[in-house]
Amino acid sequence: MSVRLRIDLAYDGAGFHGWARQPGLRTVQGDLEAALATIWRLPSVDVTCAGRTDTGVHARGQVVHVDVAEASVEDPERLVRRFNGVLDPDVRVRAARVAAEGFDARFSALWRRYAYRIVDRPETLDPLRRGHVLTWGRPLDEGLMNEAASALLGEHDFASFCKRREGATTVRTLLDLGWTRDPDGVLVATVRADAFCHNMVRSLVGCMIAVGEGRRPPAWAAEVLAARVRDSAVTVVHAHGLTLEEVHYPDDHDLAAQAQRSRVVRTLEAP
Amino acid sequence: MSVRLRIDLAYDGAGFHGWARQPGLRTVQGDLEAALATIWRLPSVDVTCAGRTDTGVHARGQVVHVDVAEASVEDPERLVRRFNGVLDPDVRVRAARVAAEGFDARFSALWRRYAYRIVDRPETLDPLRRGHVLTWGRPLDEGLMNEAASALLGEHDFASFCKRREGATTVRTLLDLGWTRDPDGVLVATVRADAFCHNMVRSLVGCMIAVGEGRRPPAWAAEVLAARVRDSAVTVVHAHGLTLEEVHYPDDHDLAAQAQRSRVVRTLEAP
Repeated sequence: MSVRLRIDLAYDGAGFHGWARQPGLRTVQGDLEAALATIWRLPSVDVTCAGRTDTGVHARGQVVHVDVAEASVEDPERLVRRFNGVLDPDVRVRAARVAAEGFDARFSALWRRYAYRIVDRPETLDPLRRGHVLTWGRPLDEGLMNEAASALLGEHDFASFCKRREGATTVRTLLDLGWTRDPDGVLVATVRADAFCHNMVRSLVGCMIAVGEGRRPPAWAAEVLAARVRDSAVTVVHAHGLTLEEVHYPDDHDLAAQAQRSRVVRTLEAP
Repeated sequence: MSVRLRIDLAYDGAGFHGWARQPGLRTVQGDLEAALATIWRLPSVDVTCAGRTDTGVHARGQVVHVDVAEASVEDPERLVRRFNGVLDPDVRVRAARVAAEGFDARFSALWRRYAYRIVDRPETLDPLRRGHVLTWGRPLDEGLMNEAASALLGEHDFASFCKRREGATTVRTLLDLGWTRDPDGVLVATVRADAFCHNMVRSLVGCMIAVGEGRRPPAWAAEVLAARVRDSAVTVVHAHGLTLEEVHYPDDHDLAAQAQRSRVVRTLEAP
């Protein structure tokens, strides 16, 4: 009998060539699958994640699932200790438990939440946070950025902010997009959507930076969105300011139905 | 004419062999003095700091002073930009300005405040903070640690917690010592004193960890203090959990008098 485990993990993206397994490169999926294979004495293990982060992107709330023989599953606390004993310190398993019926880390998710962090007065950068905060040389007006952001909320075709893939839809529902300053003055974008296409958060941030600097008016964001083609004036900002903070799932009884809905919505997506 | 500059800086201690200049080793003082010499085209520059941090110790609120020809001093914002343009990204100058009359970064200080951070449930460690948070494998009871801490407050001879130096007093006034948990569950010690002797914060933390684990009763801390000799049961914990957070100075009119008082109090200290 096989069971499905849900594993919650966090990582510092600096040392990884992103999430997805790639021959000869260190990736989070590669490290995690190798660790699980070692612990379970299996030739290989396949894990599925909620958000396939790019090179340099961090995670505090990544979620994965893996199917494994029931006999391999032990006390969750012990499992977490064993995983972390094998993994390098830049990846940490936060929790591991048998998933509820119908759980799929990718398709059962209701939404993903990312944060993007920027210091716009370089002298205020905390050197201890420099690995996950972008330094921007000019001051940014978060009021203008929030004005730009509000026009992007809701269900839209985000083709203007995505790296297009053949046969994949770029329609997404943006549930939250807004900027606040934390107590240290760091600008933090909260970006929450049902799902994201490739480069989407970093392109949205690049667009709002142009507005925050005053290079473009707030209404420009909506114009870019409406054009539905990539605009060379929108920069894809650096990966190291981006962190996957949280993946949210419905109540247990709705996990399978939600997975079914997601598969239908993204029916045009390449696998 | 020479003027005295006050420079506030922050650094990630991981890449440094501590504060103090040492031939052939990368140190914060060495890097800072080299940067200032480059900018001012001087053969060498001498800076004095408020807290000489050890190898691996971080700072968010280090303060230094340097005496320089009046002609070298320009607009503070421009000075900060120039310093940061020359320094590596793990040291950041936060502010630079002409100091008030009588200012001495070391002797005018009223107190120094350090923080020591510990994660006592290893699976909750945020990989993005692992460079400045100690991971402890067993749960710690902050109630017991605070009980131990309260007996150490005030003016005492802290010889039990210091690396003794010939002819130097180990009498210090501990103004704050207490543990709280931040929103992520990280245990944070706040340690504030008029000044610290070598290894003092890390020994105090080592002592309180023994109490927090239940290996020793809270009253043990006071016993160690009273003995006035180092106790091999007190561990000097790792440097990377320690950060110099703040140095506090009196109002400008009292800077010189405070410097005078500090010199008298520490009259027995080696230079």
